[in-house]
Amino acid sequence: MTTAKRDTYTPETLLSVAVQVFNERGYDGTSMEHLSKAAGISKSSIYHHVSGKEELLRRAVSRALDGLFGILDEEHARGGRASDRLEYVVRRMVEVLIAELPYVTLLLRVRGNTDTERWALERRRDFDHRVAELLKAAAADGDIRGDVEVRLATRLVFGMINSIAEWYRPDGRGMNEREVADAVTQLVFGGLRRAS
Amino acid sequence: MTTAKRDTYTPETLLSVAVQVFNERGYDGTSMEHLSKAAGISKSSIYHHVSGKEELLRRAVSRALDGLFGILDEEHARGGRASDRLEYVVRRMVEVLIAELPYVTLLLRVRGNTDTERWALERRRDFDHRVAELLKAAAADGDIRGDVEVRLATRLVFGMINSIAEWYRPDGRGMNEREVADAVTQLVFGGLRRAS
Repeated sequence: MTTAKRDTYTPETLLSVAVQVFNERGYDGTSMEHLSKAAGISKSSIYHHVSGKEELLRRAVSRALDGLFGILDEEHARGGRASDRLEYVVRRMVEVLIAELPYVTLLLRVRGNTDTERWALERRRDFDHRVAELLKAAAADGDIRGDVEVRLATRLVFGMINSIAEWYRPDGRGMNEREVADAVTQLVFGGLRRAS
Repeated sequence: MTTAKRDTYTPETLLSVAVQVFNERGYDGTSMEHLSKAAGISKSSIYHHVSGKEELLRRAVSRALDGLFGILDEEHARGGRASDRLEYVVRRMVEVLIAELPYVTLLLRVRGNTDTERWALERRRDFDHRVAELLKAAAADGDIRGDVEVRLATRLVFGMINSIAEWYRPDGRGMNEREVADAVTQLVFGGLRRAS
């Protein structure tokens, strides 16, 4: 027996259901029918909150992007030597990724089939660019190695950070966000090799 | 006008078409119909070469796995200090990923819905485990930092390497596999920070 749940959703709580479904089925593979089933409310109830699934996508990736861009406005990202600011940003990226895991996961899977997806990709590129500029400035200061090309280094560091979304599960049994952020910062800046 | 292509495929050339379709549509989203269209031959011609799409998947991920496991049998991966062997393996992983890009990309996207996918995931875990053992031995030798937990360090290093599949395109305009392998090795072992 299925009983329709009374619609006690807010745009915010509906969003968290939608993001889960998008991450499981892929955005393209998700219909309003799927969202309605997962939320336990009718499609027209969903349309009461949002104009459609693309609006849910926009809200979800906005949350991830706001979290990431917010880092750049934080005090330690704005003042001081470029290398210290870069280290701060790398650490905070890991923390934001873990704190907003489903939203960042969705952002990382966006492919560019709709206007919203293309907009999200553009914003991601802006963010990558801002971090690359910081890396460039740190290299110009002589604090960061100059033998790895800036764009490639940025891609590799983002690759390491973003890969956390593939395996991190906030189940309380594993590492917390601080431990993961410490490890990433140590590896990215110090490398594996023990200084001799 | 569509004319059916004469079947001049070998299992090998059919495989390269199939891998491309799997990577574009996802393995689950690919039907024999899609494969038949992409190859320009009938489904029965495909069945002449292989038992079905799962056999194509098995052959494709086997090629990636054979490439990766082959590294561990190479001379420099077998003799010498653990840290040198680890560095060699990391470099060769990047080279194999780029040399077998579509096959490794497919392997990295495998999700575990079929026996073949579960087998591939199991083999991937074996490989990860072999590299983690090397990292552990290098830490025991005192050559690798001991403050990042082995399993986490392995995951992060694999995350960096595997992310290359997301953006690397062998179009001749960008970096070649040696440049990317150099950069990864420098970052993973030396980190970004300039030794002072």
